[in-house]
Amino acid sequence: MTDAPFAARLAAVAADVEALLERLLSDEVRTGEIARPRRLLAAMRHGALGGGKRLRPFLAVETALLLGRSGEGPLLAGTGVELLHCYSLVHDDLPSMDDDDLRRGRPTVHKAYDEATAILAGDALQTLAFEVMADPATDPDGAVRAELALGLARAAGLGGMAGGQMLDLAAEGRYGATTLDEDAIRTLQAMKTGAILAFAVEAGAIVGRADAGARAALLAFGRHLGAAFQIADDILDREATTEQLGKAAGKDAAAGKGTLVDALGMEGAKREAARLLDATLAALDRFGPAAETLREAARFTVSRSS
Amino acid sequence: MTDAPFAARLAAVAADVEALLERLLSDEVRTGEIARPRRLLAAMRHGALGGGKRLRPFLAVETALLLGRSGEGPLLAGTGVELLHCYSLVHDDLPSMDDDDLRRGRPTVHKAYDEATAILAGDALQTLAFEVMADPATDPDGAVRAELALGLARAAGLGGMAGGQMLDLAAEGRYGATTLDEDAIRTLQAMKTGAILAFAVEAGAIVGRADAGARAALLAFGRHLGAAFQIADDILDREATTEQLGKAAGKDAAAGKGTLVDALGMEGAKREAARLLDATLAALDRFGPAAETLREAARFTVSRSS
Repeated sequence: MTDAPFAARLAAVAADVEALLERLLSDEVRTGEIARPRRLLAAMRHGALGGGKRLRPFLAVETALLLGRSGEGPLLAGTGVELLHCYSLVHDDLPSMDDDDLRRGRPTVHKAYDEATAILAGDALQTLAFEVMADPATDPDGAVRAELALGLARAAGLGGMAGGQMLDLAAEGRYGATTLDEDAIRTLQAMKTGAILAFAVEAGAIVGRADAGARAALLAFGRHLGAAFQIADDILDREATTEQLGKAAGKDAAAGKGTLVDALGMEGAKREAARLLDATLAALDRFGPAAETLREAARFTVSRSS
Repeated sequence: MTDAPFAARLAAVAADVEALLERLLSDEVRTGEIARPRRLLAAMRHGALGGGKRLRPFLAVETALLLGRSGEGPLLAGTGVELLHCYSLVHDDLPSMDDDDLRRGRPTVHKAYDEATAILAGDALQTLAFEVMADPATDPDGAVRAELALGLARAAGLGGMAGGQMLDLAAEGRYGATTLDEDAIRTLQAMKTGAILAFAVEAGAIVGRADAGARAALLAFGRHLGAAFQIADDILDREATTEQLGKAAGKDAAAGKGTLVDALGMEGAKREAARLLDATLAALDRFGPAAETLREAARFTVSRSS
């Protein structure tokens, strides 16, 4: 359960993100572009618009707000992270990857279009994520824009999200038998989902000009939150229905993927989720009551039902 | 034919690029990364190392040199463009795209590994391209780094390279019958290959701090060069052997893709290549003898045999 003001705040940011994505993915040709091919644009819109809690931009916006910065800059930075997240969903759903037909209750991009179009749509959504980070509208300071692009790249690439997806595919046994111990599962999860979620918080800290102490605390918050998010996801995969999730339930377990529910048991996983939530909240102690929305976001992340 | 000093200079920059890529794609975990999964790293190395003329970094390095800037900065900026190019080759070769088994005389990444790994390797090479652009080692000025990332994104995304690949797939008729007139073929080519080639020159202009006049001239040079490069490619696809190309010859023609050889005939295409070369060279007039290496690069681009 989340209280009404938090839910309203989350919905308001999601609406802002949706409006911004609608603008970025309009059919108007922008500076430096030659044309916007209709089919690719439509597939990108399918992959990015109309869904999701927009938790990553929410974290960026609320972190920046905690540091006294609001307006379009933090929203753009958070939306850059969201675009990166959307690209990863489009590619993860592909037949050669997780082979999913359903996402947010709708056909996945390769189902609605075709595989080639889905690959290109994911590619171009990743490109757009970096375009948004580097755009002067996101921050007047070039060093800040470069830092946003650099941090996003480090969280998204070989040593982060893409590497985590590679480990996840290998965990299915498709490249030879494998069993992951608890440490290996934690590493996989920190890469596959944790790095981008943590960077969403960091993006807010970057545009918010956090000093070293605040930045370190926010980094710790983001990392713990990423881990808490993923264990909540593992628990949901076992306990929620396909209807609740808007995607196939029980799929990770069926694929033999290592999750912390396997490593710790369901009760152990729930205890660990609670422990991670405590650590997440503790990282915010120095900010006092001002960080209440981020605390709510952490509680929401662990107790969400979809 | 290219004269010996130019060929030696091209080879020297290619060797520098190779060494830099070797360093970027080593197994050492770098700042901000969690781990470098071996299989993904190996596939990225397969897609990026050991091949190619490295024409794009050469253009960036020589353009910066014309403006009085040398060293690792321009090499890094050019290598960022090359990484973006390498990602596009890995994805274009995929079974659902152009379905190629051979690239630079070796198995394509999905043949050497598998489709999922090739998609991820392309994804992570794109990410690395932006990481390199945004890295402080590439330029001490954050505004320059952000401009590099922004320009690369605009050249690579929906309104550039990815959009061009979408138009190219549609030109095969897979989404319904289609015939492209000469203008449509030029737009497709300007997006699919021209935008990134032109941006390689622009990246050199950005790190070289070109003034407005020099920048406009270099931009025109890059755009004409991109068009000349593509028409040379269309001619090669008809006239060269698979052995010369290191990839399947005659494939674009067989796929029914619109090329300027179709639109203009072989003789007309050769006349157009000569006209584009003249325009490319004319754009460099203001730089006098200092631009001789860029002129050689343009002549090489049009007369190359692979």
